[in-house]
Amino acid sequence: MYELHMDVIQKQIRLWLEEDIGTGDVTTLSTIPLEHQSKGIIHVKEDGIVCGLRIAQEVFAVIDASLRFEPKVVEGSSVHKGTVIAEVEGSTRSILLGERLSLNLMQRLSGIATKTNEFVVALEGLPTRLVDTRKTTPGHRLLEKYAVRVGGGFNHRFGLYDAVMIKDNHIKGSGGITQAVQAARRNIPHTMKIEVEVESFDQLHEALQAGADIIMLDNMAPAQMKEAVSIIKSKAPHIVVEGSGSVTPQTIKAMAETGVDVISVGRLTYSVAALDISLDLNERKGTVQ
Amino acid sequence: MYELHMDVIQKQIRLWLEEDIGTGDVTTLSTIPLEHQSKGIIHVKEDGIVCGLRIAQEVFAVIDASLRFEPKVVEGSSVHKGTVIAEVEGSTRSILLGERLSLNLMQRLSGIATKTNEFVVALEGLPTRLVDTRKTTPGHRLLEKYAVRVGGGFNHRFGLYDAVMIKDNHIKGSGGITQAVQAARRNIPHTMKIEVEVESFDQLHEALQAGADIIMLDNMAPAQMKEAVSIIKSKAPHIVVEGSGSVTPQTIKAMAETGVDVISVGRLTYSVAALDISLDLNERKGTVQ
Amino acid sequence: MYELHMDVIQKQIRLWLEEDIGTGDVTTLSTIPLEHQSKGIIHVKEDGIVCGLRIAQEVFAVIDASLRFEPKVVEGSSVHKGTVIAEVEGSTRSILLGERLSLNLMQRLSGIATKTNEFVVALEGLPTRLVDTRKTTPGHRLLEKYAVRVGGGFNHRFGLYDAVMIKDNHIKGSGGITQAVQAARRNIPHTMKIEVEVESFDQLHEALQAGADIIMLDNMAPAQMKEAVSIIKSKAPHIVVEGSGSVTPQTIKAMAETGVDVISVGRLTYSVAALDISLDLNERKGTVQ
Amino acid sequence: MYELHMDVIQKQIRLWLEEDIGTGDVTTLSTIPLEHQSKGIIHVKEDGIVCGLRIAQEVFAVIDASLRFEPKVVEGSSVHKGTVIAEVEGSTRSILLGERLSLNLMQRLSGIATKTNEFVVALEGLPTRLVDTRKTTPGHRLLEKYAVRVGGGFNHRFGLYDAVMIKDNHIKGSGGITQAVQAARRNIPHTMKIEVEVESFDQLHEALQAGADIIMLDNMAPAQMKEAVSIIKSKAPHIVVEGSGSVTPQTIKAMAETGVDVISVGRLTYSVAALDISLDLNERKGTVQ
Amino acid sequence: MYELHMDVIQKQIRLWLEEDIGTGDVTTLSTIPLEHQSKGIIHVKEDGIVCGLRIAQEVFAVIDASLRFEPKVVEGSSVHKGTVIAEVEGSTRSILLGERLSLNLMQRLSGIATKTNEFVVALEGLPTRLVDTRKTTPGHRLLEKYAVRVGGGFNHRFGLYDAVMIKDNHIKGSGGITQAVQAARRNIPHTMKIEVEVESFDQLHEALQAGADIIMLDNMAPAQMKEAVSIIKSKAPHIVVEGSGSVTPQTIKAMAETGVDVISVGRLTYSVAALDISLDLNERKGTVQ
Amino acid sequence: MYELHMDVIQKQIRLWLEEDIGTGDVTTLSTIPLEHQSKGIIHVKEDGIVCGLRIAQEVFAVIDASLRFEPKVVEGSSVHKGTVIAEVEGSTRSILLGERLSLNLMQRLSGIATKTNEFVVALEGLPTRLVDTRKTTPGHRLLEKYAVRVGGGFNHRFGLYDAVMIKDNHIKGSGGITQAVQAARRNIPHTMKIEVEVESFDQLHEALQAGADIIMLDNMAPAQMKEAVSIIKSKAPHIVVEGSGSVTPQTIKAMAETGVDVISVGRLTYSVAALDISLDLNERKGTVQ
Repeated sequence: MYELHMDVIQKQIRLWLEEDIGTGDVTTLSTIPLEHQSKGIIHVKEDGIVCGLRIAQEVFAVIDASLRFEPKVVEGSSVHKGTVIAEVEGSTRSILLGERLSLNLMQRLSGIATKTNEFVVALEGLPTRLVDTRKTTPGHRLLEKYAVRVGGGFNHRFGLYDAVMIKDNHIKGSGGITQAVQAARRNIPHTMKIEVEVESFDQLHEALQAGADIIMLDNMAPAQMKEAVSIIKSKAPHIVVEGSGSVTPQTIKAMAETGVDVISVGRLTYSVAALDISLDLNERKGTVQ
Repeated sequence: MYELHMDVIQKQIRLWLEEDIGTGDVTTLSTIPLEHQSKGIIHVKEDGIVCGLRIAQEVFAVIDASLRFEPKVVEGSSVHKGTVIAEVEGSTRSILLGERLSLNLMQRLSGIATKTNEFVVALEGLPTRLVDTRKTTPGHRLLEKYAVRVGGGFNHRFGLYDAVMIKDNHIKGSGGITQAVQAARRNIPHTMKIEVEVESFDQLHEALQAGADIIMLDNMAPAQMKEAVSIIKSKAPHIVVEGSGSVTPQTIKAMAETGVDVISVGRLTYSVAALDISLDLNERKGTVQ
Repeated sequence: MYELHMDVIQKQIRLWLEEDIGTGDVTTLSTIPLEHQSKGIIHVKEDGIVCGLRIAQEVFAVIDASLRFEPKVVEGSSVHKGTVIAEVEGSTRSILLGERLSLNLMQRLSGIATKTNEFVVALEGLPTRLVDTRKTTPGHRLLEKYAVRVGGGFNHRFGLYDAVMIKDNHIKGSGGITQAVQAARRNIPHTMKIEVEVESFDQLHEALQAGADIIMLDNMAPAQMKEAVSIIKSKAPHIVVEGSGSVTPQTIKAMAETGVDVISVGRLTYSVAALDISLDLNERKGTVQ
Repeated sequence: MYELHMDVIQKQIRLWLEEDIGTGDVTTLSTIPLEHQSKGIIHVKEDGIVCGLRIAQEVFAVIDASLRFEPKVVEGSSVHKGTVIAEVEGSTRSILLGERLSLNLMQRLSGIATKTNEFVVALEGLPTRLVDTRKTTPGHRLLEKYAVRVGGGFNHRFGLYDAVMIKDNHIKGSGGITQAVQAARRNIPHTMKIEVEVESFDQLHEALQAGADIIMLDNMAPAQMKEAVSIIKSKAPHIVVEGSGSVTPQTIKAMAETGVDVISVGRLTYSVAALDISLDLNERKGTVQ
Repeated sequence: MYELHMDVIQKQIRLWLEEDIGTGDVTTLSTIPLEHQSKGIIHVKEDGIVCGLRIAQEVFAVIDASLRFEPKVVEGSSVHKGTVIAEVEGSTRSILLGERLSLNLMQRLSGIATKTNEFVVALEGLPTRLVDTRKTTPGHRLLEKYAVRVGGGFNHRFGLYDAVMIKDNHIKGSGGITQAVQAARRNIPHTMKIEVEVESFDQLHEALQAGADIIMLDNMAPAQMKEAVSIIKSKAPHIVVEGSGSVTPQTIKAMAETGVDVISVGRLTYSVAALDISLDLNERKGTVQ
Repeated sequence: MYELHMDVIQKQIRLWLEEDIGTGDVTTLSTIPLEHQSKGIIHVKEDGIVCGLRIAQEVFAVIDASLRFEPKVVEGSSVHKGTVIAEVEGSTRSILLGERLSLNLMQRLSGIATKTNEFVVALEGLPTRLVDTRKTTPGHRLLEKYAVRVGGGFNHRFGLYDAVMIKDNHIKGSGGITQAVQAARRNIPHTMKIEVEVESFDQLHEALQAGADIIMLDNMAPAQMKEAVSIIKSKAPHIVVEGSGSVTPQTIKAMAETGVDVISVGRLTYSVAALDISLDLNERKGTVQ
């Protein structure tokens, strides 16, 4: 579960460490002896879903392969204020170098997983998938989409390259839904899907006719959306139906009950309310045991 | 005002475009003819402070130097819902390639500038500086610190490399405030300052004695903080005094009135509530005039 | 038609130029005066389909933006021995720097387009798509898949990241086709397809039951393949059926007549028989007019 | 023997893996458990010369340092269809990630070594060196030149930077062979050689007079070539004589018997006929022993 | 002491090795068997201060992690001609690959440390700091500033980014010292210092008034400099006073006695007189013990 | 003359600018208005040979393509103290950003050209070539070798990759000069030369016998060297003879008169005595005309 290809992340971790450390941590290099050892205790300061333990581990591993990082809870756990979620032990200098970046990442990812989970809980018992959008923080898309999965959600396409999504602008630019779908089908691999965003029943029928694989119902009232779903399912049951609009944890159940297969919610990653997480050092003078 | 070295940002824009576009935008390449021209109208969908016009401009310039980007308001303007803040004109394909990244960036930066400004307004008439922290989004520090300036705030150090900041962990690791300050002074250029974080009056006196350039009063009650400020100012008026704690726009004025020179607020960048911004295409068939 | 995202290619062109030029072209820098001008005439030395004009143009543009490159035929044209396909004019030094790389690329891409076209011609009148595989030259996948499109073929997935393809090894590793398809479906976006490779009717039925989006019939005899197609189309007409095996231009029509939607052919890019292309310099002393 | 500086290759392997894996192998990550172990058996499916074992080993090492790769034959061996040439054991996920790239590379390099060897066999007993040209696959020059050595051939210069090669265009651009050789000699280190390509006896005499270190006889008839060789050897026996033209394994012996020291053959790397190589997984459930 | 953030240096070492090794060391790969082992003895050929042992160690570690590098003296030691300062043992090929780069670096860094130390010795007993400037070798600033510290000196700012330094050009461009200081203060963090370069007493008074943190007295005669120091110290004792001019080891004491806190000397790094250092191989046939 | 492949240099210029500018020039961005214009006058402060005008021009072009850089003397000119060698005009901010790097480079390169020229003058009238070594500043080899050419010298090999140089260590490692030369000849292209370093007449005879292309006479007394030259020239007049030892401008003529073709001098680049060069700004308020 929760799978993530770490090679891409490692490269970014190096860039992010450079951003913070630059030509060197003048405080730590000056004040902490090279051989000083500590244990860092990482705990949450509010309730939420923990996400990013693997990323924090990678941050410390990139800095110093001799650090020992031990998760104390499982990725995706629901934890209460005060829970110790991980410990990291070894060179004090190395722990301090990685402290800020690992916390900044875990706080943000846990915030996303926690917010995602609020929506997921509201969908309990329903077959509907909650999915994210491309409104992610630049440079953090893979991580934020991972956090959505950790929080119990699913992902929409990863970028402009792995699925076709025909929106209003493409319809205008190509002369119509039919032309857009046909043009896309000619150009893309048979392994790739075409999604069409529709705002009316006319558009819906044209998209069905043109052979869309996914139809997104944008900002429809529940009754309309329900009717649209039943039209699609009666004509082409294999088509995935996606609902979209200004959804909150309070309103998502109603949209799910229209029968859409998938609901996409931009705010999962659009504004990020971080979960408060701290690292405390327990000094351990002397050297590694 | 609001100065920013753009070379560093350009490199990141390229990486961020790669994240979104990857091996190519299959939708746009398939459906929009190469020669199709449009004008994109960028407008805000809620009230706030606009930030990131220069960055959006750079995003479009990196994609296609022939796009014409025209800001319609000044960076840092306070705008109302519906205001058109910029227009971009040229190849439809190029505009669509840059749409998501430029909006993702402007939304986040305007959100930070807007939140910063709430605090700044609360400090009106007082000489106190509002500053940020290192709790920024990895890879976005320069931009987020710029947004804080655009919102009327100031910056704390940029990273671990450009100022010494002695915290509890460094004090423990080096044997005391005195030892830490002396060790730092020996190692750093005379052009660099040393800040010491203190939590008690004992620590305060030791920091003064050791020759700190900046003293940060961490989580002190207002009365204590006021006393601490007066001790410092009486002994060494050139020392900058920084207050820190859980400050909100409602409580910041009280802290400012203790006489601290600077108040640092992590939440300016810690959680980012984006400002809603959209791009609408006005189709322009035919070619460039 | 034939669309290609050039940004990714430009980066590779730079690396490829470095491979050839290294610390400098000692011959050209020594013997050709800086201001010497020429026109290079690029012509084919055997019959075939021309591919790579845009890439060659980009090679020369990367070296020297002042070179004027003019294609003399349309990308994808079928040409005869001796046809001039492009001219490049400007600094002799710059033309000579780009000569080898631009020819090496066009020769290989035209070779792929030419070979692809042999298969495409054999499929004339049939609705079957000819597609490539991942047996491409490392570092050249985007270009080679582009050449397949120029030659009249279509593409299979671009890499391991944009579609699920469950082969024998994945079936073993996950405990069966059903488990593999379910595991994949849970993990991937709803925008992504799942292809299952089957070698028997038992596997075929399991794949249908599990909900595959694409079924690949691997190395089946024509009669079996025909029966397999009819089973799939009767149960789930939206499923794409792919045929695979040791196909040649002589045998591909027979496979297409089984009713498969797509035929994948590794040898389009597996061995590359280059098309012979040359650049002749017409010296033009003096300077640019 | 067969030496190769691996540092340059490692960097390219990383880029090539990125091309195939991108943001992650969605199939393997979804269907194969993290702890699943296998052994991959690599065998050839046609007769030929094996080349690239070290490169395949490096591919797997870059992906996962804990994989155990064991060559079963010596690099450069002549093998028959069915021969197991290597085994790789460890994490199934890691083996599957590296399968395609390692095969794509070995197939191409073995193809080049095999083709080279056909020419080398034809030269048996003669002192003539068979060498390659710069008609290599962009990004693969070091590897392809290595494959030529593995197949029993030798290399021509590596790029434009490590030897001077004066061709027709340079002669025109500088005013003549004499001027070109003199200009080059003035500019280059005394450690570098100058090769001149001649097409007539007049040019040959001028090249000899000008002090060429290597003379290439381009497209001469055997009798002429023989005479040219004897002229050169009588006047300056230390000069290396290179023959060039449309050589095949059938005609190369005749050219060698003219007495040239070196014969350069573009087709060694110009079109690459891959050698068919496969990897079969022997599943090993359970964990590493 | 002498602290240095090695991550930045490692990247440069890779680039510098590429510069020397390129596509491979043709001599060593051809003539030294892969398994040949040696010990390299590194000794100085003139008296001086040793600097760069850690860098040399890193060079060898980057090339081959199995090499054993053992410093024989402490970084910063004053040594006499003939002293063995380090040994490196392992693969002969690897030692030869790193020989030239490690020597080139140590020779230059030891030259800087040695020259720095001449000035430091001249300041013995005085509280004055000797500091460097930005007249460093491009790409070597961190290392050269480290060498200055090893030689007993201190550093000025690291670049244009970590301190404000207002020189004549900035004064002109902004309209005066007062305007320049105020503009800078508004823009920079409170953690950053402002240095003003003054050439007259008028400028000195304006800089004091404007609130400079550091005042540099440029090219003043000793008597003037002494008077300037006493003016500054009487008005604002916390201000750091820097003296600058054409200082030599012979004249620096006189400048120090004017009471300046810091003396900056460009020639510490401006021209580098390398310290002669050699590596001798003691061949050890056979394999690692 | 003086040719240099600029592409490699441009990349380094970017890295070197990053080293100095980092996250931004806080002084210039704060104090100089964006639209402020100036002209920078670059003049030498001591006599010498000017080198690096093209490099300085490139530094300014990389920073800001709208700057106008105009050389006032020809590269390689011998100039006197006070000579204006170039002017650069345009944005004051851009000029200040490039000032330090362009001066640091020109000062060092002019220093090398000047020192080289002292040796060249001493060789006047003799056919002997003065050449450099690999004792260059890491990251600056191409530039420093260019400066040697500008000063009237020639280059030795560029790195370990473009010529074979068999020294004492390779002789030991391979079992003897004969074995080393044969092993190298087998492995390298016929376009590459083999140099052997000899210290005795026995070694000289073995190198001749083995077929060296260049023989270096290391640290021989003049009489011995003269005899060695006459032995070589009588047996194989095409062999290049290189002399080496502790040569100064005073002693080089004597070595040249032994008849060696080439004399290599490490100190041309080993220690760099910079030539003092300054940039003065002439303020030009207002905007570009």
